[in-house]
Amino acid sequence: MTDRPPLSRRNTRTVIAGSVSLGGGAPVAVQSMTNTDPHNPAATLQQISRLAAAGAELVRVAVPDAAAAEVLEQLCLQSSVPLVADIHFDHRLALAAIAAGVAKVRINPGNIGSRRRVREVASAARDAGVPIRIGVNAGSLPRDIREEYGVSARAMVETALREIGTLDDVGFSDVVLSLKASDVSTTVEANEQISGRVDIPLHLGVTEAGAKWRGTIKSSVGLGYLLGRGIGDTIRISLTGDPVDEVRTAWEILAAWGLRRRGPDIVSCPTCGRCRVNMAEIVEQVEQGLVDCSEPITVAVMGCEVNGPGEAREADVGLACGEGVGLLMRDGEVVEKVTEDEMVDSLLQLVRSYLTRDCPSP
Amino acid sequence: MTDRPPLSRRNTRTVIAGSVSLGGGAPVAVQSMTNTDPHNPAATLQQISRLAAAGAELVRVAVPDAAAAEVLEQLCLQSSVPLVADIHFDHRLALAAIAAGVAKVRINPGNIGSRRRVREVASAARDAGVPIRIGVNAGSLPRDIREEYGVSARAMVETALREIGTLDDVGFSDVVLSLKASDVSTTVEANEQISGRVDIPLHLGVTEAGAKWRGTIKSSVGLGYLLGRGIGDTIRISLTGDPVDEVRTAWEILAAWGLRRRGPDIVSCPTCGRCRVNMAEIVEQVEQGLVDCSEPITVAVMGCEVNGPGEAREADVGLACGEGVGLLMRDGEVVEKVTEDEMVDSLLQLVRSYLTRDCPSP
Repeated sequence: MTDRPPLSRRNTRTVIAGSVSLGGGAPVAVQSMTNTDPHNPAATLQQISRLAAAGAELVRVAVPDAAAAEVLEQLCLQSSVPLVADIHFDHRLALAAIAAGVAKVRINPGNIGSRRRVREVASAARDAGVPIRIGVNAGSLPRDIREEYGVSARAMVETALREIGTLDDVGFSDVVLSLKASDVSTTVEANEQISGRVDIPLHLGVTEAGAKWRGTIKSSVGLGYLLGRGIGDTIRISLTGDPVDEVRTAWEILAAWGLRRRGPDIVSCPTCGRCRVNMAEIVEQVEQGLVDCSEPITVAVMGCEVNGPGEAREADVGLACGEGVGLLMRDGEVVEKVTEDEMVDSLLQLVRSYLTRDCPSP
Repeated sequence: MTDRPPLSRRNTRTVIAGSVSLGGGAPVAVQSMTNTDPHNPAATLQQISRLAAAGAELVRVAVPDAAAAEVLEQLCLQSSVPLVADIHFDHRLALAAIAAGVAKVRINPGNIGSRRRVREVASAARDAGVPIRIGVNAGSLPRDIREEYGVSARAMVETALREIGTLDDVGFSDVVLSLKASDVSTTVEANEQISGRVDIPLHLGVTEAGAKWRGTIKSSVGLGYLLGRGIGDTIRISLTGDPVDEVRTAWEILAAWGLRRRGPDIVSCPTCGRCRVNMAEIVEQVEQGLVDCSEPITVAVMGCEVNGPGEAREADVGLACGEGVGLLMRDGEVVEKVTEDEMVDSLLQLVRSYLTRDCPSP
């Protein structure tokens, strides 16, 4: 229903991570990270599989030591989505991860010591066709840059340029870049600045955004803003808790802009003094009934006669409630009048019949 | 910690609603709407008081009929925040609401019939110093405009200009304006377009945004984007459920941009395979312990030694966890090493002592 032109996205070069293209006009990819014990392949694979089922297209796994690196090969073989190794300081872990078959490595070359080590990692990555993500984090900037620029967007950009330069020096440019701060303004400013200076695909995230509720808001504001400005090629939402929530939130942010959609959009009114039905309960039941639906469908659940019919008319399928009764609508036409008791079941049935006709599951 | 310049906000004229200034550089005001039965003053006043305690600065009440209008006087007398009457179609309800002492009326002059009625409402509003909010909603556009432009941002802008013109014709310009759609792109586009054409303060909202989780994301993306572009003088988040959540979310969106802050910012990491403590539980306990705190303080709770100390150093008060122990930090300095059992209590105590010293309650 929008006449806003599709978001025009900044040009970036294409980087390939396993089966996933990042940048160069590819769809914004959704990623997440496991928080299971990386030495426990069963638990980690189970979480990867839950993340993939929720829509994660890339999953990152921390590789804190050699034992975790040894588990990686099994993870890579059994995961249905490409895996990214998260490595700090120890270049041998990067080499082991590449050998294990990861699709991408997140490592900061400035952290791993000598130029010889950087060259070794870059050479292994090049041979394996594995890109490297440079991850600049406001919480761990090089001391000299921090002293010169403070902890700031500028300092993050300078750090990124230095890291890019370190890989450039050894002839490696198959990189993705992230600049993350735990506050939205700094994250936005750093990404705006860097996107004007390099054509490297950008991985977006507000780091340490917090627990589910607060982290969802910070990420939605920050990543939503950048995506709205055409910036960002892959996103990861950071939430303290079950990472499946990160994936669901990422998809919902992309859907909000119409960039991508997975699963239903349920439009429902906040209710007001005019509402005569228990909307919160009805919407909750509809949400629950559609929790496993990955089809893009717009469902309106409206509580009164003022905005109800209008919104329900614009949706694929809608329910406009009055006192004790509801009008079921499909493609803007009323199809049935139902009682309050029947509303939820009838609406879910209408959704199913709509999807069966129009959008058969792949 | 940001070097992003403070958001520059678009110039709008000032409109006064009771004790609250909207536009003209005033802080972005937070509002919500009751969903109790408007004929029940006790329940409505109780909800108003909960909304005000959560930080609502204006509260809207639906006035569907004369009986509800009669209750308004009592509500206005007893509410600690200015009230806004939400009226559709019936200009007599607007007159009654103004007489009852509301601080603002939300009504669309195009909906109330003859020019005589519009003049009557405008005249009563002018005498009482009560502004009118014109609320354009994509779900209820005039038929002729919908037929010409479809349901679109352009149609919303045309509707808004017509409504403004109707009030202008009777010499009334003390107005606030909202253009809401249930999808983010249309809402953003409509507000971007109108903000280039009028200097009327804008009330932002994504209407029928959905239940708490989905509605929070849509509102954070849409309103976050507009606020990031300097657009918006007052915001209302629409969520199906308890409206107190709307107020908390509104504040968190403003805090994300550093526009305003109320209550603590709790920075916490998403945890990864490096984490050796139960972060989700620790953060949840810290959130709970600070739920009634309205002081602006940044608290970092970090799960590992990689980004932990850096983030904790930037926060007012921080906890960086290692295996079984944590470092408590204040203003960037380590103040104590504590065991896992003591972490939450010690951190909350440190917050209290920090606030007592630095930010005494008003």
